[in-house]
Amino acid sequence: MELIDTLHIDLDRLNSDLEKYARFGKDPKGGITRPSFSQPDLGVRKLFIKELRHLGLETTIDGAGNIWGRLKGNGKKSGSIVIGSHLDTVPNGGKYDGALGTLMAKEVIQTLIENGITPEHDIDIVSFTAEESNDFNISTFGCRSFAGRLSTDFLKDVSDSKGLRLVDALNRVGGGIENYSSMKQLRKDKKAFIELHIEQGKRLEDKNISVAIIDNMVGIYRNKVTITGEANHSGTTMMNNRIDALTAASEMILSVERFAKDDPTDLVGTVGKLDVSPNAANIIPGKIEFILEIRGETEERINHTLEEIQKCWQEIARKRKVIIDQEVIQNQKPVKMDSDVVRILQKTAEDSSEPYLILASMARHDAGYMAEVCKSAMIFVKSIDGKSHCPQEYSTPEDIEKAGNLLLQGTLNVDREID
Amino acid sequence: MELIDTLHIDLDRLNSDLEKYARFGKDPKGGITRPSFSQPDLGVRKLFIKELRHLGLETTIDGAGNIWGRLKGNGKKSGSIVIGSHLDTVPNGGKYDGALGTLMAKEVIQTLIENGITPEHDIDIVSFTAEESNDFNISTFGCRSFAGRLSTDFLKDVSDSKGLRLVDALNRVGGGIENYSSMKQLRKDKKAFIELHIEQGKRLEDKNISVAIIDNMVGIYRNKVTITGEANHSGTTMMNNRIDALTAASEMILSVERFAKDDPTDLVGTVGKLDVSPNAANIIPGKIEFILEIRGETEERINHTLEEIQKCWQEIARKRKVIIDQEVIQNQKPVKMDSDVVRILQKTAEDSSEPYLILASMARHDAGYMAEVCKSAMIFVKSIDGKSHCPQEYSTPEDIEKAGNLLLQGTLNVDREID
Repeated sequence: MELIDTLHIDLDRLNSDLEKYARFGKDPKGGITRPSFSQPDLGVRKLFIKELRHLGLETTIDGAGNIWGRLKGNGKKSGSIVIGSHLDTVPNGGKYDGALGTLMAKEVIQTLIENGITPEHDIDIVSFTAEESNDFNISTFGCRSFAGRLSTDFLKDVSDSKGLRLVDALNRVGGGIENYSSMKQLRKDKKAFIELHIEQGKRLEDKNISVAIIDNMVGIYRNKVTITGEANHSGTTMMNNRIDALTAASEMILSVERFAKDDPTDLVGTVGKLDVSPNAANIIPGKIEFILEIRGETEERINHTLEEIQKCWQEIARKRKVIIDQEVIQNQKPVKMDSDVVRILQKTAEDSSEPYLILASMARHDAGYMAEVCKSAMIFVKSIDGKSHCPQEYSTPEDIEKAGNLLLQGTLNVDREID
Repeated sequence: MELIDTLHIDLDRLNSDLEKYARFGKDPKGGITRPSFSQPDLGVRKLFIKELRHLGLETTIDGAGNIWGRLKGNGKKSGSIVIGSHLDTVPNGGKYDGALGTLMAKEVIQTLIENGITPEHDIDIVSFTAEESNDFNISTFGCRSFAGRLSTDFLKDVSDSKGLRLVDALNRVGGGIENYSSMKQLRKDKKAFIELHIEQGKRLEDKNISVAIIDNMVGIYRNKVTITGEANHSGTTMMNNRIDALTAASEMILSVERFAKDDPTDLVGTVGKLDVSPNAANIIPGKIEFILEIRGETEERINHTLEEIQKCWQEIARKRKVIIDQEVIQNQKPVKMDSDVVRILQKTAEDSSEPYLILASMARHDAGYMAEVCKSAMIFVKSIDGKSHCPQEYSTPEDIEKAGNLLLQGTLNVDREID
């Protein structure tokens, strides 16, 4: 594989881009609040499109408001290699999640242009709409739309909590559900997708390695669990007469932690949301509702853990006389990243003597849905302290530069190796 | 001790009274909603005063709106023996909690009058204001006021959640903080207090015994506990990198249950109120707030249990790297009931061959504060399924009759034995 040794991204320019874009949605409470369709989002979109045009890219906006820019190839190969991520943030988020991948894609294309490199495929940059959890309750909205996973019949009735209709929000950013059918044609044109993103975890930091190549995206299983005991007076109900839903829940929660820890793979189990009823100091809890979440690299590991948990919970229900009701509210299968793209990225890293890890992504990203459209993979950059979705989100310039050069060389190698 | 064998309460009349009073505050959602100062409370007060007057009792209302009725004694002994309870209820409460003790006191006095019995002391009936938790956030308001435990300086600024001032509510029922100072004189006149109440637990039912004599009222200790961990992404934060406040809380809650169960006395430990922050399915809980409640018959047992809990929690904090902050928000000492009154009630039960238990009251009652005023004790009636503060609250007519006759004979015996 060929490496153009002198070719590298301009870290200073990228850093100044990160700062410039971070001004949109600066929150007085700290961090950046820039949900899609908000005023700061409209501002950042305008700037992004202007800058892409300034680079000479042909820009388009699809039905979902995703922004596309195209660097024309030499025409030897049909279709495009796509790089990019998203520009929206969670409330009080950081300046790296999404923006780093999008602006690095711009930096890669600018570097190619400045070095007079014309790829064999077209190179597309994309900024997907509304990747983060948002007020329309549809995360990864832009890529799911692009992948044909959201029907216009469903979308036309969606509104946010203030009553803004999604269709009106889409019109505001140049999208529109009338253009959803044409995305089918756009999809056919895509050959590969590489998304650069911060890790949002500590696995790279723990091993002191700057970058990871992602070969798998975890499955996410969520169960709504209701435990029914008997609400009763906390004084007059003796310990042996209680059916306390909270002590039962406590045992159940600890079992989730235990079984997730026991798993030899990167499987995690969490109870993050829990509500007590009636929730008064002098009443034994009669009902607990919580959400069990399991994330794992393979269905087999997720299912094995769920079976262990269920066996344990049945025993708790029997012993404590509580009733446990469960409802599966999410069951996203793990997504394999494309083995060709992963292999090319690995080879690229090895050729430049850059140490890397092969990891599963423990969060879902746009690449998870783009994998249904074309050969897709991701590059992760080390997150300091694993922090994300907060003002403290940070990656060092050194790590960012290494990841950026891997994206740059990797994109060229994917362009060369894939037809 | 003398027993007038032919003397007994009229169960039918009491039952019809219970039904009649239960009509005030009948809640469409079930049960009775009759907080003090509400329209149904005003109605029930009017009826109660009318009926006391009809019996020929001299009625008065003190500063706290407590209703008093007096059956004059023969003048041999100064002061009065007080019987009664309260007529307010919790929202959707039952028809026995409070009302049974108040109406039974009326039944006892009516029985005395009908049988031409003139006691040596005056016999006072009392219905205390706002015994239950209420919107002014002052439970056992009437008896605490009467015992001189609430200052008018504090009370004059108290309002309910709708902005109604307590002083205006008091005026509405014939009370007034301007009359608080005169309660000091009223207190001096009281020689003994006996309160009949439902058990609200299952100890009598478990032993199939109708009545209990209460020799002690539990101490109540409450601690507000804050556990600080680290809120983090539920996917990207591996199990060994987590500082999960909820799994820490789960261990802590189970330790409370374990140590309370280990205690050989009637000690109970409860976490009834718990709030998770930020409380989202995909975020590891960063903060938990809960209230620990311990109730026990002696300070020694409460303190012993608290020490065990604290030792265990320190170990959990060390192991899990969470920070545990605690604030004592309640520390009510146990209250000994008067040994003379308890002994007289025991002897009364034995003379009538009525099986009884000697129990601690696991809830606080008006008698807990009246114990600071005069020799006080309680009689409990078996609660079916231990239910209270709900529409299903129930005691059988047979048990009620036994408890009523114990109150009747016990009052006469206390009148005779105490100077």
